[in-house]
Amino acid sequence: MADLHLLSPLGFRATGVYAGIKTKHAPDVGLLVCDASSPTAAAVFTTNRVFAAPVKIGREHLAESNGRIRAVVVNAGNANACTGRRGDKDARRMCQFAAGVAKCQEWEVLPSSTGIIGHLMPMEKVEHGIVQAGEYLGDSLEHALLFADAILTTDTRRKTAATEFRLGRQTVTLAGVCKGSGMIGPRLGLKAKQATMLAYLTTDAKVPRALLSSLLQEACDESFNAVTVDDHASTNDTAAVIASGAAGVAVGGRVEARKFADALADVCRSLAYQIAADGEGATKVVVVRVRGAASAAGAQTMARAIANSPLVKCAMNGNDPNWGRIVSAAGFSGAEFDPGKSTLTLQGTVVFRNGQPVPFDDAKVSESLNSPEVVAELNCRLGKSEATVWTCDLSKDYVTINADYHT
Amino acid sequence: MADLHLLSPLGFRATGVYAGIKTKHAPDVGLLVCDASSPTAAAVFTTNRVFAAPVKIGREHLAESNGRIRAVVVNAGNANACTGRRGDKDARRMCQFAAGVAKCQEWEVLPSSTGIIGHLMPMEKVEHGIVQAGEYLGDSLEHALLFADAILTTDTRRKTAATEFRLGRQTVTLAGVCKGSGMIGPRLGLKAKQATMLAYLTTDAKVPRALLSSLLQEACDESFNAVTVDDHASTNDTAAVIASGAAGVAVGGRVEARKFADALADVCRSLAYQIAADGEGATKVVVVRVRGAASAAGAQTMARAIANSPLVKCAMNGNDPNWGRIVSAAGFSGAEFDPGKSTLTLQGTVVFRNGQPVPFDDAKVSESLNSPEVVAELNCRLGKSEATVWTCDLSKDYVTINADYHT
Repeated sequence: MADLHLLSPLGFRATGVYAGIKTKHAPDVGLLVCDASSPTAAAVFTTNRVFAAPVKIGREHLAESNGRIRAVVVNAGNANACTGRRGDKDARRMCQFAAGVAKCQEWEVLPSSTGIIGHLMPMEKVEHGIVQAGEYLGDSLEHALLFADAILTTDTRRKTAATEFRLGRQTVTLAGVCKGSGMIGPRLGLKAKQATMLAYLTTDAKVPRALLSSLLQEACDESFNAVTVDDHASTNDTAAVIASGAAGVAVGGRVEARKFADALADVCRSLAYQIAADGEGATKVVVVRVRGAASAAGAQTMARAIANSPLVKCAMNGNDPNWGRIVSAAGFSGAEFDPGKSTLTLQGTVVFRNGQPVPFDDAKVSESLNSPEVVAELNCRLGKSEATVWTCDLSKDYVTINADYHT
Repeated sequence: MADLHLLSPLGFRATGVYAGIKTKHAPDVGLLVCDASSPTAAAVFTTNRVFAAPVKIGREHLAESNGRIRAVVVNAGNANACTGRRGDKDARRMCQFAAGVAKCQEWEVLPSSTGIIGHLMPMEKVEHGIVQAGEYLGDSLEHALLFADAILTTDTRRKTAATEFRLGRQTVTLAGVCKGSGMIGPRLGLKAKQATMLAYLTTDAKVPRALLSSLLQEACDESFNAVTVDDHASTNDTAAVIASGAAGVAVGGRVEARKFADALADVCRSLAYQIAADGEGATKVVVVRVRGAASAAGAQTMARAIANSPLVKCAMNGNDPNWGRIVSAAGFSGAEFDPGKSTLTLQGTVVFRNGQPVPFDDAKVSESLNSPEVVAELNCRLGKSEATVWTCDLSKDYVTINADYHT
């Protein structure tokens, strides 16, 4: 499975080209085309009240095409957000150009943008990039990687995941790429909230549109919506999946749907984890696990409060077992919480139990925090709900990266 | 008024001594005593579900004494939080020692602690410190400053404010000191939420207890509760006011109450601003003003979302007019917001209006952000509500300070 990539599922071609939008020389326009005769697609977007032009147009196209999205066109380096009517026009124009290349209708194209907010799009470059991309479409690993690279901004590495599984006698492939490093705290969906992360998934299974849509939301809730770098909602978050149906097998029954759902969630979780690991300035992933909460919402609320606390994140950066910051974050989160009943472990070492500190070897626990993955687990002993949120530490590099992004 | 200090109001003595709790040699035990025969007092505490032992005991004492608090005993260097029953006992013991020195009852003492969470108190040092402080009580400027210094932790400077005003023919004095630099996002009160900030206010007016209590809550709401450094709720936040009545004039009628309320709010606002200015690693105060919001709660929600965004705070650190981060934060806050109707100004320069970028001179605006105070004002044009939140920028020094506080 190590060789699987975004274009392993049958029926897709893609590429990425450098159009001159990014300041550094790296692919910044990506095009993904589905060549199947009747694909289905689903997408979820940021629920920020300030949403970028491509999110607006993407929503429209998804509705107009009734989920028959045949191409994704994306640029990095400019978010096309807060750009008014001109922004809408530019997002539509990106779709027109992509439709010309993909030989489909404008409303069958899903546009995305990521980069700085409030700058008008350099459309000449973008248009030229799309046309150029059209000439280099293919389905090789190299093509998949060029597309994966074209969506990156402050990311230090590309993010990909893929899996294959059996549906009846057929092998079905499901793959994805994503980007995200800063402005990460996505709550994708209809009732959701924040960040710039983009994720595109391909599969060659045949999946009814409504099912695909609900499974995508479900998968996002336990993956992208459980990642936070800075809890700052982007205007551009988008996760989309296209099912080509080219493998010749349909996800129909309940068992198949569950199998497909698990594969989708697995791929999304892998991608989401990669976002946390590549958070701006990150040196490690911090896995915050809350167990025994009184409600699912409460578990989420506590896990997010802990994961978003700059004090917790700085302590993690310094391998400092300053657990009081974790317990106090659970306490101010608003969720039901009784420190007198709770236990906190850091990398498996109990540091706090039933309202009292548990003596531990400072140097040893500090050493255990010096790891690419740190797990902090809070057991509340109030109920049976749990939640996991992935975040990263807060380093000086985060400040360096973000103190001077604009200029 | 420049010479006024915490002990200018008649009827108070105080001091601060070094008891060896802090690692650096600086006062770490403070004692404030009210010598008047029938003082009134009010206090508001953190609403974190994880609250320190002194907060628990302080609440009890305030109730038991029916607001007749005669002394405040405070230590810095250890929060006495998450310390179980032993912590409660230690907080009570602090009060016993302070009562012995102040010649009052144990339940007439308000205890406070600030410092690291989850460490047992070095009680021998604390007790010795309180006894020592009892020997050096006085009402001079020097005594006031020693008390102000004794409550500091990562603060780089002491924080004081004072005012005097006429009530009838009498001059009344009102003064305060506070501490706070990190773990700052207080929501003091009964329905409130977070941070370690401590504030103590003195006045020689005579104020009925119930009135004093409601005016303190009101003053906190527009001062301490409007400051955020890292939005992390402390377990120890406390703001208390003691009215000695020694000036011989009572705050009775509505006009007097308003006058007193204004003075109280003025002093609290000055102290709160000083907390933002001395936020951990801060190089500037960022004043976030939201106007024209649909509701007061919405204005608060938007202002806090903007003030708490690490991306906004890093941009401010780098004098980067990256205004998209501000608009997008308002958008994800959950409050009613329409970018198409809004205007954003940075230091008076319009950068965004009616959903569109307004061209501006990057270098000039960046230069204007290079200032000890930056004002970002968002006019939503949806209603008449407004809110102001004070915060600071996020610098590399914040990370340095917090990556290694514990060890």
